[in-house]
Amino acid sequence: MAEAVDGCVRHGLEAIGLWRQDVAAQGLGETIALVRNAGLRVSSLCRGGFLTAPGFEEDNRRAIDEAAALEAACLVMVVGGLPGVVPGEPLGEISRDLTAARNHIAEALTLLVPYAAERGVRLALEPLHPMYCADRAVLSTLGQALDLAEPYAPETVGVVVDTFHVWWDPQVFEQIERAGAERRIASYQVCDFLSPLPADVLLGRGMMGDGVIDFGPLTDAVAAAGYRGDVEVEIFNADVWAADPDEVVTTMKARYASLVSRV
Amino acid sequence: MAEAVDGCVRHGLEAIGLWRQDVAAQGLGETIALVRNAGLRVSSLCRGGFLTAPGFEEDNRRAIDEAAALEAACLVMVVGGLPGVVPGEPLGEISRDLTAARNHIAEALTLLVPYAAERGVRLALEPLHPMYCADRAVLSTLGQALDLAEPYAPETVGVVVDTFHVWWDPQVFEQIERAGAERRIASYQVCDFLSPLPADVLLGRGMMGDGVIDFGPLTDAVAAAGYRGDVEVEIFNADVWAADPDEVVTTMKARYASLVSRV
Repeated sequence: MAEAVDGCVRHGLEAIGLWRQDVAAQGLGETIALVRNAGLRVSSLCRGGFLTAPGFEEDNRRAIDEAAALEAACLVMVVGGLPGVVPGEPLGEISRDLTAARNHIAEALTLLVPYAAERGVRLALEPLHPMYCADRAVLSTLGQALDLAEPYAPETVGVVVDTFHVWWDPQVFEQIERAGAERRIASYQVCDFLSPLPADVLLGRGMMGDGVIDFGPLTDAVAAAGYRGDVEVEIFNADVWAADPDEVVTTMKARYASLVSRV
Repeated sequence: MAEAVDGCVRHGLEAIGLWRQDVAAQGLGETIALVRNAGLRVSSLCRGGFLTAPGFEEDNRRAIDEAAALEAACLVMVVGGLPGVVPGEPLGEISRDLTAARNHIAEALTLLVPYAAERGVRLALEPLHPMYCADRAVLSTLGQALDLAEPYAPETVGVVVDTFHVWWDPQVFEQIERAGAERRIASYQVCDFLSPLPADVLLGRGMMGDGVIDFGPLTDAVAAAGYRGDVEVEIFNADVWAADPDEVVTTMKARYASLVSRV
């Protein structure tokens, strides 16, 4: 955590997205001190969700408390896959009723949204690429996320636009426009989609420019939809993780400037 | 080819889906003789398409001629990915303009549909799972396939409903209903979606029951939409390919009866 915060400061990055397990490892109080002393914004806390798993309510209340303490711009919600499916593990007893799982997500939100609202935390529903529908998120499109958010105030329930997850969607531009009109865009995350995908598809993300995504039109759409928050670069990639952090950030800034930023 | 035809006959299967490279290896004339002598219907010929590749027009005319000669119920069209992206190979010079690639598909069809209509061949547009958007098909949803088919007569341009590709789609039931109302369902293909996915996602298909798909509601929807053609089981899976063919067909028939068929 200290190394990541220090890297942001040295490279002139003004905000950092945090993951809960790293916050827990560092300690919540120490993390708060680190980011505040560094003058960083917390662009998001990742992640709440997995609402189809037992015990989801308690765990998500804790996540909301942590997001509030960190003054994170939002708590990213990865809603979970089919009940019983564990990422990376062989199938055991599972439910295959996708419609029921999706309905359950809507019901679970009715339990969590008031708790988040009381603490001033914005839940950011993240549609995941459909290849993760079974094991990580039955929420597969931006349109579906916006439908799910509809009963709630936009300052409490928003959506994440992540290029990796939405670039293929034939409705992505109209749904980004809709998300803007409904003031729902809580986070814009960028990384590339690699082709071919690696053996573990979770790590199929790449540095911008290393994959197939045309970032310009997506960034334009998000900007035209009125989003003015931080843009997060989020890359799950074994090679990136193994590389020298300063080189990664340097490359990231250059690619961001040439491929993502339009100003 | 002879073994596959013989297996269908011995196991009481009335139709077979053929792949072009297998037809070419056997010879078109011999294949026609084999399937006719066996009394089999050709439920589909796989595949035309790859419309974003150079030389697509000539190759697809040949595919249409072959489908006509085989009296195939349809020619399955896998439309192709982003220009320059080759499945399984590192990225070289590619186009990242997905909107342009999709528009190109629509234009390519204007060249091919009259040729197919003259020969009485039905083109079956197959939306592929979004994880193949870059390398195999920029056609990602059933709704998008139906939009693409709209200018043409349903007997010349239909769509494929393949459980593996569409099961995750939040709009799948309304789009199957629409496909029925527009008389567009040219093929219903079934296989399961494995979790976790194997290292090569192309081979992420499984025998029905080995993955996460709930076949009943999809079969009900296709039947309610008026589809009365053959149902094809299409499984790309290294273990299935390596197994004893008679055992595979026996298992397939049992799983089909218990999980897919509703009659």
